[in-house]
Amino acid sequence: MARLVMKFGGTSVANIDRIRNVARHVKREVDAGFDVAVVVSAMSGKTNELVGWVNEISKFHDPREYDAVVASGEQVTSGLLALALREAGWPARSWQGWQIPVRTNDAHGSARIESIDGAGLIEGFGRKEVAVIAGFQGVHEATGRITTLGRGGSDTSAVAIAAAIAADRCDIYTDVDGVYTTDPRVVPKARRLDRIAFEEMLEMASLGAKVLQVRSVEVAMVHKVKTFVRSSFDDPDDPRPGTLICDEEDILEQQVVTGIAFARDEAQITLRRVADKPGVAASIFVPLAEANINVDMIIQVVSDDAKTTDLTFTVTNADYERARAILDANKAEIGFSSLQGATEVVKISAIGVGMRSHAGVAAKAFKALADKGVNIRAITTSEIKFSVLIDAEYTELAVRTLHTLYGLDKA
Amino acid sequence: MARLVMKFGGTSVANIDRIRNVARHVKREVDAGFDVAVVVSAMSGKTNELVGWVNEISKFHDPREYDAVVASGEQVTSGLLALALREAGWPARSWQGWQIPVRTNDAHGSARIESIDGAGLIEGFGRKEVAVIAGFQGVHEATGRITTLGRGGSDTSAVAIAAAIAADRCDIYTDVDGVYTTDPRVVPKARRLDRIAFEEMLEMASLGAKVLQVRSVEVAMVHKVKTFVRSSFDDPDDPRPGTLICDEEDILEQQVVTGIAFARDEAQITLRRVADKPGVAASIFVPLAEANINVDMIIQVVSDDAKTTDLTFTVTNADYERARAILDANKAEIGFSSLQGATEVVKISAIGVGMRSHAGVAAKAFKALADKGVNIRAITTSEIKFSVLIDAEYTELAVRTLHTLYGLDKA
Repeated sequence: MARLVMKFGGTSVANIDRIRNVARHVKREVDAGFDVAVVVSAMSGKTNELVGWVNEISKFHDPREYDAVVASGEQVTSGLLALALREAGWPARSWQGWQIPVRTNDAHGSARIESIDGAGLIEGFGRKEVAVIAGFQGVHEATGRITTLGRGGSDTSAVAIAAAIAADRCDIYTDVDGVYTTDPRVVPKARRLDRIAFEEMLEMASLGAKVLQVRSVEVAMVHKVKTFVRSSFDDPDDPRPGTLICDEEDILEQQVVTGIAFARDEAQITLRRVADKPGVAASIFVPLAEANINVDMIIQVVSDDAKTTDLTFTVTNADYERARAILDANKAEIGFSSLQGATEVVKISAIGVGMRSHAGVAAKAFKALADKGVNIRAITTSEIKFSVLIDAEYTELAVRTLHTLYGLDKA
Repeated sequence: MARLVMKFGGTSVANIDRIRNVARHVKREVDAGFDVAVVVSAMSGKTNELVGWVNEISKFHDPREYDAVVASGEQVTSGLLALALREAGWPARSWQGWQIPVRTNDAHGSARIESIDGAGLIEGFGRKEVAVIAGFQGVHEATGRITTLGRGGSDTSAVAIAAAIAADRCDIYTDVDGVYTTDPRVVPKARRLDRIAFEEMLEMASLGAKVLQVRSVEVAMVHKVKTFVRSSFDDPDDPRPGTLICDEEDILEQQVVTGIAFARDEAQITLRRVADKPGVAASIFVPLAEANINVDMIIQVVSDDAKTTDLTFTVTNADYERARAILDANKAEIGFSSLQGATEVVKISAIGVGMRSHAGVAAKAFKALADKGVNIRAITTSEIKFSVLIDAEYTELAVRTLHTLYGLDKA
């Protein structure tokens, strides 16, 4: 029998009525002949309530206890959906991460899945049982403690379970009906994509599109899980197919650029005249990493004096002040002449596997942005994407400009 | 090192401030040199929220899913209290039922503990770790599913864990400061008992005193767990000792009657002229049991025709109409002439191990109640208690009368 994994996020299970609606989506697939495993998030708002309590007690909390508390949200939803399915007449049972088990490492709060034993779920399929799985969580077997996978981790749970049970498909139900060429709230002409390549989706998610957790896309790509992003708010009896994330080869009409992503709340830091010697990068980035500050774009250029180097990188706005303080505290060791910073910047990225075979894709963008008077603060490129850092006030203008430039506007 | 189990109910952990307060109680005992295991209930109101969702989805719910959902409440509290203890500087870790494990049978919703492996907790004590245990729950090992012990089950968790780790004492913290001779809201002259015998506490709990779950007293009695009932609202630095539940031999000045319990919301059913033949009791009580109707006092007397029998028993008010309907439906098979019923009756009981060695204890009560004009509808007695069924409107009068009669009023 063909197997299917369906994943429903927090807004899709926000209350009992919505959970019943999810049961109708599941029924449709069971009726179509699938053995179904459903992965659920916590009811919308519940994770925040739990995290709020943890933070109220303890700012620097033990991540193992954080996980024990927060994982309870998905436990509740899994039981409730199993009940809703049984109430509607289908055998179903809930599975917690430790019951399957979903084995992870012990990086509590952002644990990585190491292996999943799908045998129990498959046995249940033999009894015609729908498996309702608490997403976002696993267990570290050596200590027996509950782990969680980090925000959005239920996407990863779903894809990893699809790989473990060799599912034919993994459907990620969310509050939008698929992956768009860019955020439709910014560009009304944004189009829903029928298909997007794994590599492109990975870049889109990494670069600011919030539709899927980055890690889930990595897992889907490595294990070749055919993954759909689709809407839980569609009519359960007549839903739209959503967007398929698939191998590049499975996309017939490949565009050069598939989508435009953007990440707000960035801040830029430039260190001037840093000594150009071995170990200087470490002296800058190790203290930031130790303070759990994520550094994004890093650009290093020779200074105008040709003897030192200028180093530019971005952090989130939230980390900006802390990052400055850490750099100032280490100024003697790093040896820079001055620190220039800017908050209110945004990173805009264009993504497409077609860039591999097309030259001058980025250059076109630089010109188009210049024509609109948008100043580019920094540029990074990779094989299938390029990103520019610009002032936040130009965000919408720049996104629309690139969206039109690469032929993404809907007719 | 001496070991101590401390149990805190829902009102004692109702919010973050109260959880911090619990941490102070724990600190006192750790400072006094105890290895401490703390058992916690769900935050007050949380279990009702979870049960509400279950009932909203499904009136006749699968008890395994009910347990998966409802057990999450204690999971949250255990993590939060462990965090509060760590924040205050003591090593602590949370333990879920399945992590210890607390092994139960598979009677989901009212499971019985079969065995507890205390080794992990004791290992933790070796690391100076306070064990914070989610009460009310266990695991059925053969299926790997979460079980719950029924309302008030955290008391039983606490006493059973005290037995498993050979604790010197088990302190049940609640919102009252001990066990009283009767409910102080009904009898202002009720006295807190310094000590009460296990057998008496068992009867008190069974007969309507809500201070402890009946099963927890059974477990304490069987395993000789020295159990205190005390208040979590006392000053953590200077708490009162509460009431010790202990062996009869450990109580020096034994009263004849130790306490007066009462159970409201009873209903009485009398079947007249039931055929006096084998199997007739089964024909009455089996259908009621199958409908999950608990039958309490049962009194059978020969009818005035000397050939048939009259049978009186009590059910809860909530079950009264259903019980009548079931009996009417089975009237032909049972063969009674008429059914008389009364709601708004109350069962009042006097309890004391001293009754074993004193004659005429109950007779004094019958006279005292008659003197006050209280009509007795039914009587049952056992070795250390007697109960009378009376009209509910006389409840307070009768309780006060017996309380005074047996010398229980405080000076």
